[in-house]
Amino acid sequence: MAGIAEVARAAGVSKSTASRALTGGGYVSQATRERVRDAATALGYVPTTSAVSLVTGRTQTVGVVMPSMDRWFFAQVLEGVQDALLERRYDLALYGAPPESAARREMFEHFLARKTFDGLIAIGIEPNARELERLVAFGKPVVSVGGYDVGTSAVSIDDEGAARIAADHLIGLGHRDIVFLGGDPDGRRTSFGDGLRLGGYRSAMRDAGLEASIRHVKSEVTMPGGYGAAVELLGDRRTRPTAIVGVCDEVAVGAIIAARRLGIRVPERLSVVGIDDHAYADMFSLTTLQQRPHRQGRAAAELLLRQIDEPGSPTDRLYEPSPLVVRNSTAPVDDDASAIIGVGR
Amino acid sequence: MAGIAEVARAAGVSKSTASRALTGGGYVSQATRERVRDAATALGYVPTTSAVSLVTGRTQTVGVVMPSMDRWFFAQVLEGVQDALLERRYDLALYGAPPESAARREMFEHFLARKTFDGLIAIGIEPNARELERLVAFGKPVVSVGGYDVGTSAVSIDDEGAARIAADHLIGLGHRDIVFLGGDPDGRRTSFGDGLRLGGYRSAMRDAGLEASIRHVKSEVTMPGGYGAAVELLGDRRTRPTAIVGVCDEVAVGAIIAARRLGIRVPERLSVVGIDDHAYADMFSLTTLQQRPHRQGRAAAELLLRQIDEPGSPTDRLYEPSPLVVRNSTAPVDDDASAIIGVGR
Repeated sequence: MAGIAEVARAAGVSKSTASRALTGGGYVSQATRERVRDAATALGYVPTTSAVSLVTGRTQTVGVVMPSMDRWFFAQVLEGVQDALLERRYDLALYGAPPESAARREMFEHFLARKTFDGLIAIGIEPNARELERLVAFGKPVVSVGGYDVGTSAVSIDDEGAARIAADHLIGLGHRDIVFLGGDPDGRRTSFGDGLRLGGYRSAMRDAGLEASIRHVKSEVTMPGGYGAAVELLGDRRTRPTAIVGVCDEVAVGAIIAARRLGIRVPERLSVVGIDDHAYADMFSLTTLQQRPHRQGRAAAELLLRQIDEPGSPTDRLYEPSPLVVRNSTAPVDDDASAIIGVGR
Repeated sequence: MAGIAEVARAAGVSKSTASRALTGGGYVSQATRERVRDAATALGYVPTTSAVSLVTGRTQTVGVVMPSMDRWFFAQVLEGVQDALLERRYDLALYGAPPESAARREMFEHFLARKTFDGLIAIGIEPNARELERLVAFGKPVVSVGGYDVGTSAVSIDDEGAARIAADHLIGLGHRDIVFLGGDPDGRRTSFGDGLRLGGYRSAMRDAGLEASIRHVKSEVTMPGGYGAAVELLGDRRTRPTAIVGVCDEVAVGAIIAARRLGIRVPERLSVVGIDDHAYADMFSLTTLQQRPHRQGRAAAELLLRQIDEPGSPTDRLYEPSPLVVRNSTAPVDDDASAIIGVGR
């Protein structure tokens, strides 16, 4: 098998440049990187990772920990991380770690301590005190995605601001009886970001003089969860609001499906707004605050790689934009409807 | 830091047993494994993976390659794999590799050659000739999930049988004009398993003397994809069938949403059956063939670990069961409806 020297010669660069280009450590121009890689491929050169790792202390691997794989947001962030890592030929070591699970304990107690990766991306993870301690002991760069920043670099939307805009949009359409649907800030099913969203809704209601109308209806943060809670909420005319802010699009879409099943027309009799711009939002004509988790994942990976390349570089807190996308699930309040129902305001 | 000898002494086992318990290589009883791990945790013992790897040739990592993260099936399989690997303290290296993407080429050309994992789980991957060559050159155990078995161990449901049962269920209810919705076997958007499902539908129709009624309507294999194709199919009374077999639940649910939007009652005027028992199936009262991808992922990981532990052990082809779950999206054919439409049969 060809050695690094032959690869360097074929690419017309020094051995150290060839090494940097192949391991992803330090700066190499894109053109040089490609030339070296092409040469390596042509010569069939494959670096032995274990040996490289013992010499450089690098594992050429980034760890990703997240509570669930099976949700749009997490899957999209993961794809963005993957795309950015691939360009640098980094491996991605994945750890699913639901809150309070054995898997999560294993992750923080054992995998982190083994230091088999050069840095960690934590998606939707709100560490407890013990876990924070472990993260500090890990001693390598960490980037958080989705709200909680563990004192490190972080990428997210402004969750509080997004929910505030969602509520303001409904208030501007004349709605007064607006429910926030989804999540349970005291329970295990609400992420830190979801808690911020609830806070944004609350402050928008307060600022509009609607403090007495603030209502949070809890639900699991999934489409079936939103559906189940909305069937109950909307099924009783006495509790039915004129508008709903979903903690995320999955919950908001669940509410729309519940309304259709109950024969409540959206948006004529019920306005619904979500947060995400989920892949399903367009199909349900959902008005929502758009975020691009794929881009957040890519940004997080790029931040992390920069910190791996340049230890000691400053941490960064990126807020991605989340513009309001108005579709057809929100409309001016139907005064007849609310008058008949006689909601208090 | 404590060494392996101290851990072995504290746990009351030999050094080689302690090593096996901690690295996951070879058989150790569950009780012993736990005792050794507890001792290691108490003593703060952390094996240096790079050094271990150079000695044993093991990386204590399993690679997982799949075309997409953001689909229920893949996410569920991944969680099952993860759960099984965690119990053995194996790392999971993830590679998203959409067909014909740069990422997929990178995966097969570079990551595989680096041999940074002890075995590979390929989910929904149908390798081309070049990729097969690379898999053979990889020379380590491979387990496939989701249909295509690349001549290795494999786990899936009987996709053809499942679709046949779905079609037979509708035929038994008197339906004759049954469309198979979703996928494109000649295109990039159909997995090998989806192709088998189409085949199962076709043979059920043929066996029932309905060969002339066979109709495959293509769509992207997602909920919005099924929705868009169904709006077109159902919107025209001349092409509207009395029943649909969705290539999977996501497509079937998309068809139900399309029917609701067009005011076509399910199941009175249109029967829909899916394959999966997706998390959303219950919310839409969807009749479906149930599979448990989480369990398939776990089974795949266990098969792979057995082959890593015992090189040369025989390959295995597991078919997981996929029972019919009858909910409320299928009903006897509405003879009036089909008579009025005047569908040919």
